[in-house]
Amino acid sequence: MDYQAILEEIFEEVQPLFGQGQVADYIEPLKQVDPNKFGIAIETLDGQCYQLGDSQERFSIQSVSKVFNLALATNLVGDALWQRVGMEPSGNPFNSLVQLEYENGIPRNPFINAGALLVVDVLLDHLADANADMLGFVRQLRCSDVYYDEVVAESEKTTGYNNTALVNYMKGRGNIRHEVGQVLDAYCHQCSITMTCTGLARSFAFLANGGVVPGSGQRILTTSQTKRMNAIMLTCGFYDESGEFAYKVGMPGKSGVGGGVAAVIPGKLSIAVWSPELNEQGNSVLGIKALELFTTKTGLSIF
Amino acid sequence: MDYQAILEEIFEEVQPLFGQGQVADYIEPLKQVDPNKFGIAIETLDGQCYQLGDSQERFSIQSVSKVFNLALATNLVGDALWQRVGMEPSGNPFNSLVQLEYENGIPRNPFINAGALLVVDVLLDHLADANADMLGFVRQLRCSDVYYDEVVAESEKTTGYNNTALVNYMKGRGNIRHEVGQVLDAYCHQCSITMTCTGLARSFAFLANGGVVPGSGQRILTTSQTKRMNAIMLTCGFYDESGEFAYKVGMPGKSGVGGGVAAVIPGKLSIAVWSPELNEQGNSVLGIKALELFTTKTGLSIF
Amino acid sequence: MDYQAILEEIFEEVQPLFGQGQVADYIEPLKQVDPNKFGIAIETLDGQCYQLGDSQERFSIQSVSKVFNLALATNLVGDALWQRVGMEPSGNPFNSLVQLEYENGIPRNPFINAGALLVVDVLLDHLADANADMLGFVRQLRCSDVYYDEVVAESEKTTGYNNTALVNYMKGRGNIRHEVGQVLDAYCHQCSITMTCTGLARSFAFLANGGVVPGSGQRILTTSQTKRMNAIMLTCGFYDESGEFAYKVGMPGKSGVGGGVAAVIPGKLSIAVWSPELNEQGNSVLGIKALELFTTKTGLSIF
Amino acid sequence: MDYQAILEEIFEEVQPLFGQGQVADYIEPLKQVDPNKFGIAIETLDGQCYQLGDSQERFSIQSVSKVFNLALATNLVGDALWQRVGMEPSGNPFNSLVQLEYENGIPRNPFINAGALLVVDVLLDHLADANADMLGFVRQLRCSDVYYDEVVAESEKTTGYNNTALVNYMKGRGNIRHEVGQVLDAYCHQCSITMTCTGLARSFAFLANGGVVPGSGQRILTTSQTKRMNAIMLTCGFYDESGEFAYKVGMPGKSGVGGGVAAVIPGKLSIAVWSPELNEQGNSVLGIKALELFTTKTGLSIF
Repeated sequence: MDYQAILEEIFEEVQPLFGQGQVADYIEPLKQVDPNKFGIAIETLDGQCYQLGDSQERFSIQSVSKVFNLALATNLVGDALWQRVGMEPSGNPFNSLVQLEYENGIPRNPFINAGALLVVDVLLDHLADANADMLGFVRQLRCSDVYYDEVVAESEKTTGYNNTALVNYMKGRGNIRHEVGQVLDAYCHQCSITMTCTGLARSFAFLANGGVVPGSGQRILTTSQTKRMNAIMLTCGFYDESGEFAYKVGMPGKSGVGGGVAAVIPGKLSIAVWSPELNEQGNSVLGIKALELFTTKTGLSIF
Repeated sequence: MDYQAILEEIFEEVQPLFGQGQVADYIEPLKQVDPNKFGIAIETLDGQCYQLGDSQERFSIQSVSKVFNLALATNLVGDALWQRVGMEPSGNPFNSLVQLEYENGIPRNPFINAGALLVVDVLLDHLADANADMLGFVRQLRCSDVYYDEVVAESEKTTGYNNTALVNYMKGRGNIRHEVGQVLDAYCHQCSITMTCTGLARSFAFLANGGVVPGSGQRILTTSQTKRMNAIMLTCGFYDESGEFAYKVGMPGKSGVGGGVAAVIPGKLSIAVWSPELNEQGNSVLGIKALELFTTKTGLSIF
Repeated sequence: MDYQAILEEIFEEVQPLFGQGQVADYIEPLKQVDPNKFGIAIETLDGQCYQLGDSQERFSIQSVSKVFNLALATNLVGDALWQRVGMEPSGNPFNSLVQLEYENGIPRNPFINAGALLVVDVLLDHLADANADMLGFVRQLRCSDVYYDEVVAESEKTTGYNNTALVNYMKGRGNIRHEVGQVLDAYCHQCSITMTCTGLARSFAFLANGGVVPGSGQRILTTSQTKRMNAIMLTCGFYDESGEFAYKVGMPGKSGVGGGVAAVIPGKLSIAVWSPELNEQGNSVLGIKALELFTTKTGLSIF
Repeated sequence: MDYQAILEEIFEEVQPLFGQGQVADYIEPLKQVDPNKFGIAIETLDGQCYQLGDSQERFSIQSVSKVFNLALATNLVGDALWQRVGMEPSGNPFNSLVQLEYENGIPRNPFINAGALLVVDVLLDHLADANADMLGFVRQLRCSDVYYDEVVAESEKTTGYNNTALVNYMKGRGNIRHEVGQVLDAYCHQCSITMTCTGLARSFAFLANGGVVPGSGQRILTTSQTKRMNAIMLTCGFYDESGEFAYKVGMPGKSGVGGGVAAVIPGKLSIAVWSPELNEQGNSVLGIKALELFTTKTGLSIF
């Protein structure tokens, strides 16, 4: 398939959508991002890379990083993880306290904020230097161009009252083992990861490849763990829009409020898009449209 | 692939699970079903049929029928349907009133009871004789051995206080157009449909075939509508266990409290299992295990 | 104290409030009521009656009647009643299904709709002719001018989808014993009771008198049951405005969407007001203001 | 009335209840309190004091202190307070996050934890030295024997994850102005106040006296503010048991998990009881029984 030509068509067709969303404004560094950015990159399992637009520019991947932490935690503790976090869609906004209360401090899934904070607490059990090791993990996925943005991390920490509430609530229920401050620091760093579209596509390739990093051959997850990861991305990866996204796009994936989206077609390829304007559910307007066009044009939906 | 051999392996391996679940007991006719039944059938898109065990015995498909009604409603009214029902996972038990109240009478998806009742109300707008036409629709899917079980339908009506509550609540919010009694009658008939595993597998084949009935070539849904249907089955088809099922089995599907489960591998095949013992989430214990074994053995998971 | 003079002052001071509320419009007969009505009546325990304005005109007392049914049920079954309904404030709108679901079909208190429907179900256990007996009970309270408005009762029945949902839901949870239709018929009749302000004040006098009807000397409730009744009126009698009303007015009482309010000062008097315009919480704008002025002018608040 | 004789009768009658409750155990200092304590004290508006048992021993008044802070905040900012906190019963446990979320960070009333934290934030706006000034306020109520227990305050801080969650959540919604740590420090100190039954009864006397401290004649609250305070105590002062308490006891009051209860009969007297064993709702078993007996024996219920 001529992926480059398809990327060019997509690029053309998403142009009219600029201006229909809003750049995230809850922290200053995200607010200042140029709304007119659009980058897209594909990494196929046979090692080809296709890209267009601002695909080489680093951006704040925000919640997309929850996938890396979940993969790392799964790698470290296996199925034991699921005693402390669920894997069901939440039916509530991503930062809801209500679900936590009704379910006694067990987050519904690892992609709502409460669940991602829980995963960080699990990582802290096993990592000597959490911040360095989380970044090191992404580098193992053959993506070297990955850094923390300390300005973003700091802003997240200063304004993250809701996340602080979530960690404290779970700690009160006995489901957080480390110091609240430690969990928040690692979480805010995770959120502040910056990567390019090409890097992001490459680092997701192992999820399209049954858990093995293409090129290096390193196994990160078992086949079964990889299927679970993809299933969780499909059912929970797009906040309250997961159901609609599952239908429209038909790819397991994860979005972030920085405007990034990464997704995979198992057995085929991984893809990453970045465009900062968000819809009301907090997903990238052009990013989601681009993926929808991609599956339509290629016929590669898992459905 | 030697599907018959795989079915035989599965049959062997699920045997130890008999006795681990409970037959549905909220109505007398379901309560009396022999818990030791197990049937399974596969229909491939190239027209082959494989089966084992009690695959020719008719059983009460219950909520599996929600898929037929949703397909018929989509066929009749297209996207307009989604103004009256959502397509997001619910995060609440299948018969919850709470979600309805917080979302002003709009059911979260067409597979929770409220949503299925809503779909029936939509059908009543367009069908001259709803009960006859719903059955006629399944017959168009090349499954002739399909009937209502009037004893079941009557029992559902007599004991369905919660469903009556749901319809009345939605009517109070202006989201039900027909008489409450009419909606309930059609809904209870839909629930009472009895089919065999072979019939059920066959009637689901169009969902594996892009919306076209194999054999007859009749188009029921557009490609895009079929993808949406499969996505909704994957994210909402198994009550509160949808997330876990999506991972374990990796097939879009739908279960019913009669112990039936039907699922598809897009582009490949449809499969139906029946075994009456249910787990705590109301899904067939052996049915789910059988599908999990099937995707493991065949490697056919969509993830 | 010169109650007549106080009533005249109140009458003067509430005049500017006409036009600030909305007459109930969910059923036709209530919608047609003249918004400019205002009646008030006091019955003291020493047998004096004071009144002003439209105090002799009958109006639809609606939820004020819940007090009569609760008194009758208490009289008939005593403390056993509290196994099937709570006596805590609800913190939710009066017709909420959410509370019922979280508390397994036990209504929080007898003045939310679910609780009042439950009380009717209890009455049906003990009354030969519920509709006649409920009216007969009010007549025992020395108020003969009391009737059902069959047009209102019928309208309530035709539009009462939410109440139908509530009864069905409770029946599904095993907390309703009689036929749904029977419960709703009795409930809708209860709501349709019409009385005058003087009649309403008189019929509430036993609640100011330790449970004994002044004049006849008939004991309806024990002293202890009367205290409980007054406590429930104070904490739950004014929908979601109960807390504010408790403070502003300082009298146990009950309001209805017909614009009526009845209240008592234990040991002293009972009072009834009617004015059809309602505030957003469904309480009579002038009615509540009149009672607030009454306690301010007389210093008779229980606080 | 011979109050001393009544206290002696009460003392006798509550004895069999020892052992029916549980001493609070969420912090070490409370856990170590002798469960067999029982003290009671009455302060009448004509200046008499009656007491019995451990009425001179200081104990941790915990949430009873919320009344002092609310009185002080009302004194300082008047009605403006009610823009930031409601005065309706909550219908949820005292530390629920659910209510806060559905109502956008506005606590339902000042006696649930979220509301009390909010009141502390208001105090911090107006007090030069919050901790000293809160204590000074209680001393103005003619109770000099009042201190913070720094061990308790520290324990509250160390274990108060849920309160930390509440403050952070409200700050995220813009309803907390001061630093989270500052609010928690003042709140934990407030909770750690230790007083005797005699001191507690004396300090509540102004609430029975229309807002004026008996003896000193100092006006703390207006008559109207005092009525509101009493109304809020009646409807919200006993956690999820407020409705039942309102009926059984018929006095506005407030309880704490230290086993203290303080209440008033407007125009007559104030009363305080202490006994550490708590029922499931977190109210003192013997304390509530003692107050119930008191109103039964004296006939002094407000109902």
